Amino acid sequence: MLLMIPGPVQLHERIIRAMARQMIGHRTADFSAIMEFCVNVLKDVFGTEGDIFLISGSGTAGMEAAIASFSKVKKMVTLENGKFGERLGEIASRYTEVERIQVPWGESVELDDVREAFENGCEAIAFVHNETSTGILNPAKEIARIAKEYDALVIMDAITSAGGDYVKMDEWGVDVAIVGSQKCLGAPPGLAAVAVGENAWDYYNEKCPYYLDLAAYMKKLKDMQTPYTPAVPLFFALAEALRIIEEEGLENRIHRHRILSSAVRKWAVEAGLELFPNLNKYSSYSNTVTAIKMPDGVTDSELRGTLRREYGILISGGQGELKGRIFRIGTMGNVGKFETISTLAAIEDVLMRKNAVKPALQYAQILLRDLQ
Amino acid sequence: MLLMIPGPVQLHERIIRAMARQMIGHRTADFSAIMEFCVNVLKDVFGTEGDIFLISGSGTAGMEAAIASFSKVKKMVTLENGKFGERLGEIASRYTEVERIQVPWGESVELDDVREAFENGCEAIAFVHNETSTGILNPAKEIARIAKEYDALVIMDAITSAGGDYVKMDEWGVDVAIVGSQKCLGAPPGLAAVAVGENAWDYYNEKCPYYLDLAAYMKKLKDMQTPYTPAVPLFFALAEALRIIEEEGLENRIHRHRILSSAVRKWAVEAGLELFPNLNKYSSYSNTVTAIKMPDGVTDSELRGTLRREYGILISGGQGELKGRIFRIGTMGNVGKFETISTLAAIEDVLMRKNAVKPALQYAQILLRDLQ
Repeated sequence: MLLMIPGPVQLHERIIRAMARQMIGHRTADFSAIMEFCVNVLKDVFGTEGDIFLISGSGTAGMEAAIASFSKVKKMVTLENGKFGERLGEIASRYTEVERIQVPWGESVELDDVREAFENGCEAIAFVHNETSTGILNPAKEIARIAKEYDALVIMDAITSAGGDYVKMDEWGVDVAIVGSQKCLGAPPGLAAVAVGENAWDYYNEKCPYYLDLAAYMKKLKDMQTPYTPAVPLFFALAEALRIIEEEGLENRIHRHRILSSAVRKWAVEAGLELFPNLNKYSSYSNTVTAIKMPDGVTDSELRGTLRREYGILISGGQGELKGRIFRIGTMGNVGKFETISTLAAIEDVLMRKNAVKPALQYAQILLRDLQ
Repeated sequence: MLLMIPGPVQLHERIIRAMARQMIGHRTADFSAIMEFCVNVLKDVFGTEGDIFLISGSGTAGMEAAIASFSKVKKMVTLENGKFGERLGEIASRYTEVERIQVPWGESVELDDVREAFENGCEAIAFVHNETSTGILNPAKEIARIAKEYDALVIMDAITSAGGDYVKMDEWGVDVAIVGSQKCLGAPPGLAAVAVGENAWDYYNEKCPYYLDLAAYMKKLKDMQTPYTPAVPLFFALAEALRIIEEEGLENRIHRHRILSSAVRKWAVEAGLELFPNLNKYSSYSNTVTAIKMPDGVTDSELRGTLRREYGILISGGQGELKGRIFRIGTMGNVGKFETISTLAAIEDVLMRKNAVKPALQYAQILLRDLQ
């Protein structure tokens, strides 16, 4: 099965092999060396001089570690224009008062509303950079700039952007950011990395969960150790995935992600389909996942079921209220031209049978030619 | 390196190979089938008809999920005679009032003190079954029986017992129990399983951490799914580890663990070493890890360092205040006669150079002969 979903992503053969190793003791210099390598590459990926904490758990565990550990605020604002934005609001509500800015999924958040939240006394903001559920890229730089005018803490979910799109924490003024292993980094699921700038510790809340208490991770970081037993095979895999990122170069990698997603978008529009996100002046289309409206007269199982059965390709449907209304194509991690064009050709074939699209593969092909 | 530490354990070749697979989508029937298999075998391992929740995270994440999710009590008592008992007290203190029964590490907890805690109004108890830091097996059955006289909730850390020693939740009256993947189950680290009986839900506390909220896991269990992206490769590995357990048979497996640990203990005593735990009428030696006092005149690095450098064998030292005072040999998971006798021979060789032991390998050999 070819995975073209927004995580877990298809693994590079080298990453699969990296896991096929006997265990090592985690309280050893061998483990610390692996962790140190991961930490150093991740600093580049996040664009930060801050600390990197590696948590054995999903991206959600990473988000909760970030929000709970740094929740000593009167009020936090969360931006919610998709499933993962809403999740931030739900998590934050367990730790502090939250002003939840909610717009329909796929709509763009207005910066004026963000400003108003700070005027209303919010001391921190949590938002999703790349909203996977809707294929929208929220304007991280602009949001952080406004937050900094009010001297507020900025927590950014970069779970599906870091490693595939520009994330410049220090330059933008983002204090805390999170990435998941199984997205643009190209590794298997099960690890989250939380990047933390020094400022964040002013907001440290000791009443956070024990397992997700970043102060415990901080204490062990100087020895390149984790406070609790790490998921060792996933560290082997992450290190190999980050080696591949180093070899490709972060700029080249981001360029590749941009070309792949723009080819998907170009194909969709020329084929007569409609992209799902409703952009405003500041938001933009995701460069790692594309959400497309399901054409009239085609069901989710007709499209995705046929694709899976006949072609062995897995793409995503809509989540929650978007079930059956959109489909989503992930172009994340180590996939390239081959996987992308095959996926579009297969989708086109299936939708042509329902007279739901016109042939448009050539438009994607032209864009993909730019990729070596 | 041969890992003879109390987790992560040496992996069986089949389990290593099970991880060397391309990713699959986690919201698929393929994943659900793997999860269902794991859940069913784990019910046997725990001796329960209750529900099994699989959390991507360390054993500590599992313990916190159990304690936090079921912490709606006036007061909880924790039994602390080692590092992991103390950890339970620290975790529980984040969620409710806690009466911490603390005795020196390696000592046995007195059942009268347990009874007194319930007389004092404790409505729940959390304790460690097999205390890895000291090599002591706490009397789970007796503790649960007293708790049930007071109709109290029983939460048991079976992280290093389940799969290697008897754990009979339903028979003993244990409501919630936890196991870690990288111990007696023989899988790599990174997953925790929490077994939950129906009674526990009377104590459900909705103010638990989002990621560790067992109600969210419960909601997804009927579809054999997890609420957040699972660590897929570790599920592949766990399923293979549980297949090996099924093939060996749980009774045979427990028998093997008992023989291996008794061979270690017999060797130690005959060699002139002293076992660390101070037993009382109800406690006993661990059947999965053996803690031995470091002989006079031998340092931790002389023993463990030499063993690692010359033999490529990793055993554990003491944790916290026991650093340098004890050493620990794990005989967990899928290790057998070969690994155990090699380890004892190597230790004997190193300690003979310091005139710290007399030859005693034959005593272990006789016991190990019983193993096929």
